[in-house]
Amino acid sequence: MTGTLTIAGLGPGSDALVTPEVSAALASATDILGYAPYVSRVQPRPGLTLHPSDNREELARASEALRLAAEGGQVVVVSSGDPGVFAMASAVFEALEQAPQYRELPIRVLPGITAMLAASARAGAPLGHDFCAINLSDNLKPWALIEKRLRLAAEADFAIALYNPRSVRRSGNLAEAANLLLRHRPPETPCIIARNLGRAGETIEILPLASLAGSASADMLSIVLVGSSRTRLVPGEKPRVYTPRGYFDEPPL
Amino acid sequence: MTGTLTIAGLGPGSDALVTPEVSAALASATDILGYAPYVSRVQPRPGLTLHPSDNREELARASEALRLAAEGGQVVVVSSGDPGVFAMASAVFEALEQAPQYRELPIRVLPGITAMLAASARAGAPLGHDFCAINLSDNLKPWALIEKRLRLAAEADFAIALYNPRSVRRSGNLAEAANLLLRHRPPETPCIIARNLGRAGETIEILPLASLAGSASADMLSIVLVGSSRTRLVPGEKPRVYTPRGYFDEPPL
Repeated sequence: MTGTLTIAGLGPGSDALVTPEVSAALASATDILGYAPYVSRVQPRPGLTLHPSDNREELARASEALRLAAEGGQVVVVSSGDPGVFAMASAVFEALEQAPQYRELPIRVLPGITAMLAASARAGAPLGHDFCAINLSDNLKPWALIEKRLRLAAEADFAIALYNPRSVRRSGNLAEAANLLLRHRPPETPCIIARNLGRAGETIEILPLASLAGSASADMLSIVLVGSSRTRLVPGEKPRVYTPRGYFDEPPL
Repeated sequence: MTGTLTIAGLGPGSDALVTPEVSAALASATDILGYAPYVSRVQPRPGLTLHPSDNREELARASEALRLAAEGGQVVVVSSGDPGVFAMASAVFEALEQAPQYRELPIRVLPGITAMLAASARAGAPLGHDFCAINLSDNLKPWALIEKRLRLAAEADFAIALYNPRSVRRSGNLAEAANLLLRHRPPETPCIIARNLGRAGETIEILPLASLAGSASADMLSIVLVGSSRTRLVPGEKPRVYTPRGYFDEPPL
């Protein structure tokens, strides 16, 4: 059994954000699996088989990757961003847990720049203090749990990254989340909608929390950041959003 | 005013995790500023001035970087990991807010692989579901706020990344945090202590939450991850920790 399985993060979209260890893994792969738009970011070459698949087939894709590696392939599963953040790494270990025959396969996870870090960098430093990441999709968890987490995250005064802010099935998730957060944070709290990060047509929009619910800008390829009570807007030709490192002079706990 | 200021993330320690855009910025820099151990990761060359400085001098360093860029330098401020996560990007925008004369300087933030993502990748996929990042240092915020956030993060059932788990001044922070979390999560909850990530002597230790308070492994160069109630351990020669993507069959909210 000389095959290997690598789960690699391609970063949010630009080759300038792909780490050298991920590039090396792609260059020596025999098989690359992943959601079709991510697989299409890999250049075809002789000796490499591309296995694009549909969204929502994560477990089947993970099982197929384990099987190909067990047969001796140098298999790479690609995710956008970081493979450990709402992406394929969990699916592979979930499949591995169900298939003990693959437990001794050499499996590596190679991290990538996840969307919230790329969005944060483009906008300034909104995640410069304690923060959390919440996936707004209710495909895999109940909406009541998402609401509970948003409420607690607001109470904790975390800056908040919202992954998958809008889905086809439930287009109102972001508006509901924004209205919930508005009950806990000032209406002027700076928010960021980042679309097509690192790709053609990238947009970074800074807007107050009061306008987030009504904004139509966020789509499935977006990430939304919501500031904490301390997050500040620095005006200028190119305005910036940042959360200070310090938290003294805090409001009563 | 043709100078530029770039705040760049070097990733956790290995050159294999430095993005191409960060490498390019370092290659064309005239001045590099940062905490001395991070600056020492940059190769000296003619035309490049290295400005290493001490820890806890973030604001002075940020102001100096703005000044050098305003004088025409191609200035890069380096952080370990991601510059937007408990690092220099916030300090630069804080300094910028206080110095309006620099507002139109071209300033870029280049993201990097932050420690929690590298640690997560090495251990499996413990951050595969909703999670938060909390800095355990009470240099810049009151300990009572940290306790409050830990309590709320536990209630939200986030996986939790603990940055700066141990400081010189307050060596018991991690034990206090672990004991607090133990009131909310099962003692067998998988935790990870990652030390010297991407550097010589890297260690990844998986241990139950019940053992975290008593562990002496974490130091200032470590990051600690604490699983959620759903986080699972996959046994094997190399055990893995992952948090499933899904959350149905959840306990009552």
